[in-house]
Amino acid sequence: MAESILTEHIKGYTSFSEEELSEIVTFFNHQSYKKKETLLFTSQRCDKLFFVAKGCLQLYFIDDLGYKKTTQFALENWWLTDFLAFQNQKHANFTIETIESSEVLSISFSKYNELLNKFPLLEKYFRNIYETAYGAALMRLKYINSYSKEEMFFRFREDFPEFVQRVPQYLLASFLGLTPEYLSEIKRK
Amino acid sequence: MAESILTEHIKGYTSFSEEELSEIVTFFNHQSYKKKETLLFTSQRCDKLFFVAKGCLQLYFIDDLGYKKTTQFALENWWLTDFLAFQNQKHANFTIETIESSEVLSISFSKYNELLNKFPLLEKYFRNIYETAYGAALMRLKYINSYSKEEMFFRFREDFPEFVQRVPQYLLASFLGLTPEYLSEIKRK
Repeated sequence: MAESILTEHIKGYTSFSEEELSEIVTFFNHQSYKKKETLLFTSQRCDKLFFVAKGCLQLYFIDDLGYKKTTQFALENWWLTDFLAFQNQKHANFTIETIESSEVLSISFSKYNELLNKFPLLEKYFRNIYETAYGAALMRLKYINSYSKEEMFFRFREDFPEFVQRVPQYLLASFLGLTPEYLSEIKRK
Repeated sequence: MAESILTEHIKGYTSFSEEELSEIVTFFNHQSYKKKETLLFTSQRCDKLFFVAKGCLQLYFIDDLGYKKTTQFALENWWLTDFLAFQNQKHANFTIETIESSEVLSISFSKYNELLNKFPLLEKYFRNIYETAYGAALMRLKYINSYSKEEMFFRFREDFPEFVQRVPQYLLASFLGLTPEYLSEIKRK
């Protein structure tokens, strides 16, 4: 099931035979997680790239004052890891945790490279994924530099209404750089 | 000259014959720019991807108060555009301008796709480039959410001393979200 969600997603970018797709998914491990389970710990060697088939993950870190700060969410069909640490096989700078019960496919760094060598057409798929992700990150940096935190919240709610419904308020606050109290106050207004 | 900088960079990620590399560079236009020339205007259709062979570019936008805000720099061997707008052939959300006199290769969206179709091994090259760029953007978002603007400046100066020497102070301030006055004050301390 999770595997077919990945193959459908891949088909959206490039064409493989059903046989090839069946082999591609054998490179991944499928795991079901409950809410608030940890998939990757900060300071653990980052050897996994995750694909969300169902559910929602967050990438966060703990700041100097001990607060959890969410840097990225990943919903269905999204890839997540600490990419720099994954590429260099270094310790992760983030923790990855489920927000809801989730179905996740994961692949190790060596399997990822093996997969890309065996199916070079997947380079096109990942090139597209990362090109979009990087473009979206630049837009996000623009928003951060353009709007007050309050404006960010309203803009975010307008652009991603379902997401705002789905993600707990304290996590949304963390993602937008707001305190949960401040977010409650904004929502009350 | 600019072309050989690109081919050397490509060789760092994947192997092409010299013949293939000679053909790859024919897909690009080489242009020399003076300092402060504009390569892409906001609200112009974003139909160019840029490779910096020499010099430095900035990607910026103008905020509601009329201030220029730098979202990204690109030094030698770096690729730059408004990636979301480029992918969707929409109007750019940013302006791209030279900071120094620069040697730049550019490619249109249709040529980029033609190039990738003709040399699919380049998908691997760009997959690596964007994977790193996205990973670095996540780290940058972590820094923004971790440090005060003052701490950002000191950390940045420590991590990229040459860059701090090279980029005008007012641009560095814009990139870090500081006012130039505030940056002067920090430097005085």
